[in-house]
Amino acid sequence: MAIITLTSDFGLKDPYVAVLKGGIYSELENATIVDISHLVSPFNIHEGAYILKTSYKKFPKGSIHIIGIDDEQTPEQKHIVAAYDGHYFIGADNGILSLIAPAENFEQVIAISLPDKDLCATDVFVKAACHIARGGRLELLGRQVGGVKEVKDLTPILNAKEDLITGNVIYIDNYGNVITNITKNWFDLIRKGRNFEISVRNYKFSKIYNRYSESINFTIPKETRDEDGKRLALFNELGYLELAIYKSNLQTVGGASSLLGLRYRDTVFINFK
Amino acid sequence: MAIITLTSDFGLKDPYVAVLKGGIYSELENATIVDISHLVSPFNIHEGAYILKTSYKKFPKGSIHIIGIDDEQTPEQKHIVAAYDGHYFIGADNGILSLIAPAENFEQVIAISLPDKDLCATDVFVKAACHIARGGRLELLGRQVGGVKEVKDLTPILNAKEDLITGNVIYIDNYGNVITNITKNWFDLIRKGRNFEISVRNYKFSKIYNRYSESINFTIPKETRDEDGKRLALFNELGYLELAIYKSNLQTVGGASSLLGLRYRDTVFINFK
Amino acid sequence: MAIITLTSDFGLKDPYVAVLKGGIYSELENATIVDISHLVSPFNIHEGAYILKTSYKKFPKGSIHIIGIDDEQTPEQKHIVAAYDGHYFIGADNGILSLIAPAENFEQVIAISLPDKDLCATDVFVKAACHIARGGRLELLGRQVGGVKEVKDLTPILNAKEDLITGNVIYIDNYGNVITNITKNWFDLIRKGRNFEISVRNYKFSKIYNRYSESINFTIPKETRDEDGKRLALFNELGYLELAIYKSNLQTVGGASSLLGLRYRDTVFINFK
Repeated sequence: MAIITLTSDFGLKDPYVAVLKGGIYSELENATIVDISHLVSPFNIHEGAYILKTSYKKFPKGSIHIIGIDDEQTPEQKHIVAAYDGHYFIGADNGILSLIAPAENFEQVIAISLPDKDLCATDVFVKAACHIARGGRLELLGRQVGGVKEVKDLTPILNAKEDLITGNVIYIDNYGNVITNITKNWFDLIRKGRNFEISVRNYKFSKIYNRYSESINFTIPKETRDEDGKRLALFNELGYLELAIYKSNLQTVGGASSLLGLRYRDTVFINFK
Repeated sequence: MAIITLTSDFGLKDPYVAVLKGGIYSELENATIVDISHLVSPFNIHEGAYILKTSYKKFPKGSIHIIGIDDEQTPEQKHIVAAYDGHYFIGADNGILSLIAPAENFEQVIAISLPDKDLCATDVFVKAACHIARGGRLELLGRQVGGVKEVKDLTPILNAKEDLITGNVIYIDNYGNVITNITKNWFDLIRKGRNFEISVRNYKFSKIYNRYSESINFTIPKETRDEDGKRLALFNELGYLELAIYKSNLQTVGGASSLLGLRYRDTVFINFK
Repeated sequence: MAIITLTSDFGLKDPYVAVLKGGIYSELENATIVDISHLVSPFNIHEGAYILKTSYKKFPKGSIHIIGIDDEQTPEQKHIVAAYDGHYFIGADNGILSLIAPAENFEQVIAISLPDKDLCATDVFVKAACHIARGGRLELLGRQVGGVKEVKDLTPILNAKEDLITGNVIYIDNYGNVITNITKNWFDLIRKGRNFEISVRNYKFSKIYNRYSESINFTIPKETRDEDGKRLALFNELGYLELAIYKSNLQTVGGASSLLGLRYRDTVFINFK
């Protein structure tokens, strides 16, 4: 049976996640439910989109992804289910899906309309997800609409001379690693073999590694290596340009966010020459 | 097979939750285990009761709920299993069950007595839960006792003239929403169509919404709406009167708890007129 | 099918845990995945070892334990799978396994070598775990190596006269309980029925309980008992000597760590006489 994943800003203490899971198990005894994250900052669809965008594709095709962020139905945002890339996304049409994939890429977008109009968001999501998991057709959940709502995203910009990328910090992770909106694929397309220099605040990087440990010279003795606390740029496992501190820990030695003083939305430049 | 849920104050870092789960899987290879919450404040049975009371009923009948809060057996509190509402609750008889439902409503209360007297709480709970999940009879776990221990709860009070409810804050959630012990059902019973005014500290509310977004006037342009940061009272999805800030976030704009200065046990008045 | 457990320093907000789980479900639709902990302090293999050492043995034999702590392959640390005690451990050979069991006890240690050399740690662990879960032979994952890397652990010391144990704080839990590296088994071996006194800083304990509540005298009325806030030493459910405060809560009344001022690595003495 299809996997149902959960991404929300519900937190991990309150009953909200359990209420959602209990509802699913009550309809589908053998459901497979996987938590993606419940620690999205409240109402932060940009953060939720980054987490879900990088996770959903690792799940099998046919997976159903419930999004519990800013999830109320209002006159301006319907509850929807949208199909994309072989996956199903269920949530409020608040723009988050346009941050996960270009809005036009969603193949089928259905405004959910269930017989019982008084159901709360959680109950609507449970019913829609279980319907799909049982193999039900999307069309039975409501009527097809034009597409998902689009919201502006922080997008990296290439200048006219094509020698300067201006990107942004889009996420700071558990290690204080600073993740930008510059992907490896796009960077490679623009770079065309040129040298480059990355600048953030007054820090410069002229190399991008593919693993943290590539920045360490293992041919010299451990004592003389410049290892812990080393600044580096890398393309992380998810394909994004990341600024990091080798073996960082925000509670002790610090991480890139604290040591370089970087925050969400800060600007990152890449000069080609 | 029956679902086994876990509610505890074990936290999410330590090995305690995994020790419990490993024990269950060692007895029941195909167990379905669902975390309700492990972030109950240590020894806080009132908080744990609110979380479990609002969650358990969403799970299928026959579910088994292990409670790992103040869970040691002592001369004054036995390990018990109690049946109520088609669900099974396993924990120490510390009063928490009387906060989940009236003590007299528990249909069968068994003081667990296993052959091995030296088992720790975790092992006792694992064995009892797996016995029930396998379809074993409750009576085989020990001897029936009179009932569950009763502890005092914060209960809302109606004055003699029946025009004033005095309730309390019983929980503050991930969004800083302030949840009171006044339920929609009880309020409707007392209100009898009268007007009312809710007062907490020096804030007043004369309307109770059913959704957060009902408080917003969507007929006027977004720019001129008084939207984010708006104070409101609503009956939440779980049926409790809640004081909230629209789109609150305790880390940024604040929530009802921080902005209205409300805390656990604070008093809430509702005047009818 | 074998259970796959996860222990990491990934945190619970970022996509990393979901990426790992999605990968497993994509290979093994019916996988049983259990989170042990994702809140290990970044790169802290000692903390991770304590959590995993005390948890893994509760799972059925044949379980597969993925360790996502300091998990990059480097010229100095291979990705390995190691068999011990009927369990399989998968991670980087950074020394953590030697903190879980004596290095020589691992029966089979394989340096993982997959056809695709560019896989990131997560993908390598997913592939190795799913191979084992499907019943695949360890040898097919790579070549056998001499053993696991050994790192120094904080080990309790017995003096030559055998009347003084010097141990250390190795973990502080969710309740502020202070856990030492002195196990009940070892203590009993050395004690040989003698009286003893435990000293930490300027606190003394002359009794070791087996449960928190054993420290309370239930024969006198509750009001006159010296109960909440009581200092005690006990062997915890996992078999380690622990210093605790009865019904502690780090957010309110404090716990042993805050009230006794104890931290990781601090010294604990036991004098026999």
